[in-house]
Amino acid sequence: MKIIIVGASGTIGKAVAAALGKRHEILTTARNGADLQVDITAETSIEKFYASAGPFDALVSVAGEGHWGPFAAMKEADFYKGIRSKMMGQINLVLAGQHYINPGGSFTLTSGILSKDPVPGASNLSVVNAAVEAFAIAAAIELEKGLRINAVSPGVVEESWEKFRNGFPGHLPVSMQKVVSAYTKSVEGKQTGKVYEVF
Amino acid sequence: MKIIIVGASGTIGKAVAAALGKRHEILTTARNGADLQVDITAETSIEKFYASAGPFDALVSVAGEGHWGPFAAMKEADFYKGIRSKMMGQINLVLAGQHYINPGGSFTLTSGILSKDPVPGASNLSVVNAAVEAFAIAAAIELEKGLRINAVSPGVVEESWEKFRNGFPGHLPVSMQKVVSAYTKSVEGKQTGKVYEVF
Repeated sequence: MKIIIVGASGTIGKAVAAALGKRHEILTTARNGADLQVDITAETSIEKFYASAGPFDALVSVAGEGHWGPFAAMKEADFYKGIRSKMMGQINLVLAGQHYINPGGSFTLTSGILSKDPVPGASNLSVVNAAVEAFAIAAAIELEKGLRINAVSPGVVEESWEKFRNGFPGHLPVSMQKVVSAYTKSVEGKQTGKVYEVF
Repeated sequence: MKIIIVGASGTIGKAVAAALGKRHEILTTARNGADLQVDITAETSIEKFYASAGPFDALVSVAGEGHWGPFAAMKEADFYKGIRSKMMGQINLVLAGQHYINPGGSFTLTSGILSKDPVPGASNLSVVNAAVEAFAIAAAIELEKGLRINAVSPGVVEESWEKFRNGFPGHLPVSMQKVVSAYTKSVEGKQTGKVYEVF
């Protein structure tokens, strides 16, 4: 398969690219030093990106961010940070990508544990993650040409635990092996409309 | 209690206003013929609205809409219809309202069955509804001064069934009495961070 990985320079993205790269042709995008660049917050950038990437069989997105900050101080603009990036960025990849991907191909997006298990200061990411999950469930029933879509919802991976542990009281870090397996199941399996929770 | 009902002219909004109005002081907003007007897609309109409404004990939102249309034809702009209205409209009501509502007060937002049980053409509403639900769950752990927040997720109510039945194959209409009860539980009860699914 030819697989595009958007966000291949992040902690999870790197591991997913390494694992899938053993058996597949990988095309990476990242902010720096990747095969291709794409600004997922801009529809026009995404269209250009797909046009230059050429036909492909799977897209894995491990991209996007959101706003962290106390709820009492939040404004609409803070909320739109996650909407434009992790939420609509990933949704845009599918809205446009459905017209470029090969028949029978798959999209795998990334949500995260905060959709179900919120922590203080992360309401934007809780909302954005839940939106990505519902998108996968809803898009799956309408995609044509045998296309599939799933979301992976990881907890904080062990590799990032030292950085994030103070913000996630009582959470348990999850193994990268389990997280990578979920992406592999989505890409190489045949399921669609699933949210793979790894936590 | 003094209760603000945003969207009091809709099918559900009218029934909620009638039920809560038996025991509480109700202030309604709607597009026409209500006590107050508010454009929930505009932060400035919401601020003005709260300033003129004065102190209150509960806000119930039964407001907002989204885009209907086939997934293959959807663009980013279609998705933003629901984001600006039913999603960020309701979220904005809480972000601003937390600074106006009386201590111990509550917010009750409206999502809908499509977050869990998608139908063709409604991916925007599936996403928006899930976002509203995650917002209630996440905001609940950060609201101060004893404030509470819940979401009600109704199926298609019997009163709207003839209009919507073709778009909801295999769904069963739900009774308005059950839907109204969920809003009542949220406002008059003490729970927070809940999604009341009425379907």
